[in-house]
Amino acid sequence: MGLLVVGSVALDMVETPFGKTEKEVLGGSAVFFSAAASLLEKVRIVGVVGRDYPMAELKRLAERGIDLAGVTVIDGESFRWAGKYSFDLSSRETLETRLGVFASFRPTIPAEWRDSRFVFLGNIDPELQLDVLNQVEKPQFVACDTMNYWIQGKRTALLKLLERVDCLMVNDAEIRELSGDWHIHRAARWVIARGPKYVVIKQGEHGAILVGEGKTFYVPAFPLEEVYDPTGAGDAFAGGFMARLKRSGSLTNASLRLAMVYGSAMGSFAVERFSVQRFLEITDVDVAARVKAYRDLVHFEPDQA
Amino acid sequence: MGLLVVGSVALDMVETPFGKTEKEVLGGSAVFFSAAASLLEKVRIVGVVGRDYPMAELKRLAERGIDLAGVTVIDGESFRWAGKYSFDLSSRETLETRLGVFASFRPTIPAEWRDSRFVFLGNIDPELQLDVLNQVEKPQFVACDTMNYWIQGKRTALLKLLERVDCLMVNDAEIRELSGDWHIHRAARWVIARGPKYVVIKQGEHGAILVGEGKTFYVPAFPLEEVYDPTGAGDAFAGGFMARLKRSGSLTNASLRLAMVYGSAMGSFAVERFSVQRFLEITDVDVAARVKAYRDLVHFEPDQA
Repeated sequence: MGLLVVGSVALDMVETPFGKTEKEVLGGSAVFFSAAASLLEKVRIVGVVGRDYPMAELKRLAERGIDLAGVTVIDGESFRWAGKYSFDLSSRETLETRLGVFASFRPTIPAEWRDSRFVFLGNIDPELQLDVLNQVEKPQFVACDTMNYWIQGKRTALLKLLERVDCLMVNDAEIRELSGDWHIHRAARWVIARGPKYVVIKQGEHGAILVGEGKTFYVPAFPLEEVYDPTGAGDAFAGGFMARLKRSGSLTNASLRLAMVYGSAMGSFAVERFSVQRFLEITDVDVAARVKAYRDLVHFEPDQA
Repeated sequence: MGLLVVGSVALDMVETPFGKTEKEVLGGSAVFFSAAASLLEKVRIVGVVGRDYPMAELKRLAERGIDLAGVTVIDGESFRWAGKYSFDLSSRETLETRLGVFASFRPTIPAEWRDSRFVFLGNIDPELQLDVLNQVEKPQFVACDTMNYWIQGKRTALLKLLERVDCLMVNDAEIRELSGDWHIHRAARWVIARGPKYVVIKQGEHGAILVGEGKTFYVPAFPLEEVYDPTGAGDAFAGGFMARLKRSGSLTNASLRLAMVYGSAMGSFAVERFSVQRFLEITDVDVAARVKAYRDLVHFEPDQA
């Protein structure tokens, strides 16, 4: 009855105004998702790597509750990404993308994981995302990510996927491109009319919005004085969101809101170090403390009477 | 013991993707500020207009509690501004600025207003803002706005002004330019080190942040499905903020937070119509209802225990 994530397991080289990774570091949507989620709940990863992948490092991360039984190791090179951020971290340049074994990734869900109830479909080809869904017996809550590449190139499959997921989780540029509407609240309604009950719009330093069932919930980004590396923040958000939702076990308004705050908190930890480093330094106590700090950030007492 | 605002009283021509003003409409920082603030508290405007100004229209707006005794009418043309917004309202082009009588504006505070306790210095030359401050006997809370033009051209006067105000209220681009730091939380600390106890950073559709005394408070923008004309939203925010603060009569954390929410609410009303039109259609009951809706937008229950 676990929490399942399907996505990339990659090696990153990152340069920010504050430094750069000295060597290739763990990256990829499934890795960031799991690093965050596993602080709260056990996670099952489905992915693929080449024989060159530093499995010892991945296993060290996995010790806190990530099941790697769905990570296939095959002949060939692992997925590699290299990028460089602008002075204010607001944009990034991709220096290199080498798909390697990821190019022919056909996710297979291990038989004993088909009972997974909470499923996150990381940013991969929507046809594969649909294929994964077909392998899960009776999911309770399915969320998916996507990107401009699929919105442009696999629109039909993506719209078919939307009919079958509970929540689309994207950034503001993506939902604008998908809906053709620059206004994110109208864009969210557009998505909801196509299947998902909920839309989560991630806006980086401007926080994130949950739209669904006539309700809107807003969580700010945590006001960090130092942001080190934004890579993976969105996937860490998804990890916090899905894990907290699974822990609640319900989809009430209260559960969804708390999941949003956990998502934002995990995103804020992700950006404090390169790669998944920060998640190796903290425990669920640190996460809970940050979640509490969010309440102080937004809480006000309305007028009496 | 009133609420005093000094700023521009102008005539605007505005074009947005949704339409354009058919004729010149009321505009200017002091007008937007007062239109919003007067829904909550009585307001005193200090400004200047030419003999061509539609005083009957301004008086109609003033009926709900704006004292125009500080608005001087002199020979010459009123301040005019014309602008056009981009398709997504994210940027605007100034088509025309004619300062007219505003170019030689030397604000004089009527003797009976020198006891004003809450003072908002709209976006005018910082030397004039200082001059106004010198005419107020014992202000309890002074906030000021500014813009890139003064940050670049009157930096020394602006820094001198900062030593004497309680709150700087600017947008994100302005605080970045002023501090030389792209990171708004560090930029806020930079400002606070130079005098003001508080900084309010307005971020348009991304809400607003109050930084001060080791605390940060975040209020989102209200999720409107239709935004008609962003002109004046920042000044309406200031009007709601200052008026609610004056009503509280105290500068507690709770008062400041509630003032921020009233500011954001007033900004959200401002953008729903051209000019100050929306403020003529609503009452304090509508404002209170929107403030209540903000609570639902951000409220969550943290974990038990």
